[in-house]
Amino acid sequence: MDVIVEPKSRRTIREWNVKAAKMAKNSSNPIRALVDEMKLTPNPDKEMIALSIGDPTVFGNLPPSTVASEAVVEATRSNKFNGYAPCVGYESARVAVAEYTSWPSAPITAKDVVFASGCSGALDLAISVLVNPGQNILLPRPGFSLYKTFADAVGIHVRYYDLIPEKSWEVDLDQMESLMDNDTAAILINNPSNPCGSVFSIKHIREILAVAEKNKVPVIADEIYAHFVFPGHEYISMASQTTTVPILACGGLTKRFLVPGWRMGWVTIHDRHGVFEKEVRAGLTGLSQRTLGPNTLVQGALAKILTQTPSHFFDSTLQAIHRNARICFEALSNVCGLRPVMPQGAMYMMVGIDMDRFPEFKNDKEFTECLVTEQSVFCLPAQCFEYPDYFRIVLTVPEDKISEACDRIAEFCNVHYCREMMDTFY
Amino acid sequence: MDVIVEPKSRRTIREWNVKAAKMAKNSSNPIRALVDEMKLTPNPDKEMIALSIGDPTVFGNLPPSTVASEAVVEATRSNKFNGYAPCVGYESARVAVAEYTSWPSAPITAKDVVFASGCSGALDLAISVLVNPGQNILLPRPGFSLYKTFADAVGIHVRYYDLIPEKSWEVDLDQMESLMDNDTAAILINNPSNPCGSVFSIKHIREILAVAEKNKVPVIADEIYAHFVFPGHEYISMASQTTTVPILACGGLTKRFLVPGWRMGWVTIHDRHGVFEKEVRAGLTGLSQRTLGPNTLVQGALAKILTQTPSHFFDSTLQAIHRNARICFEALSNVCGLRPVMPQGAMYMMVGIDMDRFPEFKNDKEFTECLVTEQSVFCLPAQCFEYPDYFRIVLTVPEDKISEACDRIAEFCNVHYCREMMDTFY
Ligand SMILES: Cc1ncc(COP(=O)(O)O)c(C=O)c1O
Ligand SMILES: Cc1ncc(COP(=O)(O)O)c(C=O)c1O
Repeated sequence: MDVIVEPKSRRTIREWNVKAAKMAKNSSNPIRALVDEMKLTPNPDKEMIALSIGDPTVFGNLPPSTVASEAVVEATRSNKFNGYAPCVGYESARVAVAEYTSWPSAPITAKDVVFASGCSGALDLAISVLVNPGQNILLPRPGFSLYKTFADAVGIHVRYYDLIPEKSWEVDLDQMESLMDNDTAAILINNPSNPCGSVFSIKHIREILAVAEKNKVPVIADEIYAHFVFPGHEYISMASQTTTVPILACGGLTKRFLVPGWRMGWVTIHDRHGVFEKEVRAGLTGLSQRTLGPNTLVQGALAKILTQTPSHFFDSTLQAIHRNARICFEALSNVCGLRPVMPQGAMYMMVGIDMDRFPEFKNDKEFTECLVTEQSVFCLPAQCFEYPDYFRIVLTVPEDKISEACDRIAEFCNVHYCREMMDTFY
Repeated sequence: MDVIVEPKSRRTIREWNVKAAKMAKNSSNPIRALVDEMKLTPNPDKEMIALSIGDPTVFGNLPPSTVASEAVVEATRSNKFNGYAPCVGYESARVAVAEYTSWPSAPITAKDVVFASGCSGALDLAISVLVNPGQNILLPRPGFSLYKTFADAVGIHVRYYDLIPEKSWEVDLDQMESLMDNDTAAILINNPSNPCGSVFSIKHIREILAVAEKNKVPVIADEIYAHFVFPGHEYISMASQTTTVPILACGGLTKRFLVPGWRMGWVTIHDRHGVFEKEVRAGLTGLSQRTLGPNTLVQGALAKILTQTPSHFFDSTLQAIHRNARICFEALSNVCGLRPVMPQGAMYMMVGIDMDRFPEFKNDKEFTECLVTEQSVFCLPAQCFEYPDYFRIVLTVPEDKISEACDRIAEFCNVHYCREMMDTFY
């Protein structure tokens, strides 16, 4: 006789006890974590000036081009872009990005473009497709913290290569190469750089590529600040300077077009000798199916945005930021105990702190904390970028605010700078 | 004497050989994979009718409300929504979603809302925050394939609970419970359902919740078809029917507002006795920092879209789909060898195939393949939803097309239905 076994739960847990999965626990933004634990109490007598937020839109002095907004309005009203786009993006929009990002020495076509939710989404795709948990990725120090967020979440090991402030933040090539081993799956290069504001020369880009080539490590090029360079400097895409190193370049509308909230980013595939052909392309397509690409209204507007935004829009943004950079650099160069590094592009300036001249403060975090308390000026301590004893200034704020902020920083340093120490030394 | 060791690469790989990471290789859409391997050559004498695509916008018969488009236009022109939003979303937009999704018995506030890139992004968040690789999740069979895509990508085990077609696709509760063990981290419930078009009664929802409660397994409620039900049926949110089971509900604008490309989705947190307080809320916030939320223009328009879209917009969509459902159900009920199941909501109908009456075809895939070859009508074989011997019809196409498609399906079945077999049996 058959015994019918009642289906029964094999679960013995009898109390609610729901934990977050490891990946969620490991997904944290180091900047948030650090800022959250800072004691930020502004001086009530002084208006707060935040030089901390990498969002060029917050002060309203840098609105996007009306070409961009009206292109979205047109796409919206057309009712042609409400449906699902292919996961990698509309063909027409990818053609536009291919044309926008192609260099004569590195031409690409629509098939080499995969859309993502902002440059962050693009970086997520690029890192996820190239690096397995347990392998390692080389990241810049100082560098943008999101790279580490992605790596930590899935158990990718991070190794930092150094950027040298005295050499305009060029890569320490020997040190970089010394980090590589057989588990090194990618090098991430961010040029122009957040937080450094540096712009690499052709020569330096070629030196970096030579190391990648010699060791056969593919490059992820974070070029979200493409074309975002001051007069006298030149933006050179990594891909344009190699015929061998395979590159995933990440970009988007965020910075140059001043629309971070629109979340329009892309990976462009520069696949020299079919190295990415076998697996990486298919992998990118597979990953893009997870979230089905970025907003279609912006995709529908993209060709117009990329081709019709007038050059004076870009010029005037850069002029404003460059002017702020010079104001800030000149002002802070005259402040005892600070070593500002003049940026060449992007929207940031790094300022070194001679910590031994400020013995009251243990580190850049305490220094910037007290700067808020006394002067109501907030700059991110460069600990946020894995780089102690510096702070970062965001240069997109209105000119009067940046001048005022510099005056207050000077006053602050003047109060806390320790002249006696100098006497002890001489 | 100190020997200075030259930093040297410890890398011995000397040829380009770049593989895709495991997660990328494992991120595949089962529907894409199956459809790609199908031989789909339409009959050149008949215009193709695709009843396969779950995108209500493709035929142009169901445009979004102008309230929605104009809300986006207004948000865009306001220049107030170009910057970064908080990762979880603008407060004002989250207030709007909290109000829109609250039930008297399950009120929530803005702090319980996390935005994501479409309902897909919301599901990704919900699954990622609750389930670790190596644990298991219970998924509906038949069910939407993206759940498995997310699970497979990170090594989460999938266990299928059965939906019973004869009981309007209700859950086989005993079988569901028999799947649970101590590694079961979540149950996914999709109501109203893709591909079934079923709408659960209050009674059945309470039965499911009782199983969850008894075994202390949290629920992920995919409610992207919320309110998308035909007259005579009622949409009941899972969260409204329990005071104990913690629920992450996933929703968005995609279906009801007919704008899948806009990628506006959300997770709402229904946290009964603080079960999610300790870790899950923070985990969701952490995960949302990876891509910084969905497009801000749509976020800026959201409150208006949710509160001002006129009810006749929803009514007329449902009327059109319901009419198609009845046409289709009546037509196919009279076709020998087919067993259509009348849907109660959503945009789909499942149709059973008496495969033994169609001995020419090995399975639903061959059946639907040949339907394309002969009649230029494409329906997804329900293998795509882990459910053999059925196919799914999308009901959002224009009425004349659905009638024509049904005629052709009838003709097809008439040609291939095997009457002789019947004689053998009796
Ligand atoms: C270097 C760098 N990469 C990527 C990003 C992210 O860009 P998005 O806002 O397009 O995701 C930023 C934003 O600040 C950045 O500074
Ligand atoms: C059941 C179900 N959940 C989620 C989704 C995904 O929705 P979205 O397009 O908002 O990501 C779909 C889309 O078809 C679906 O059918």
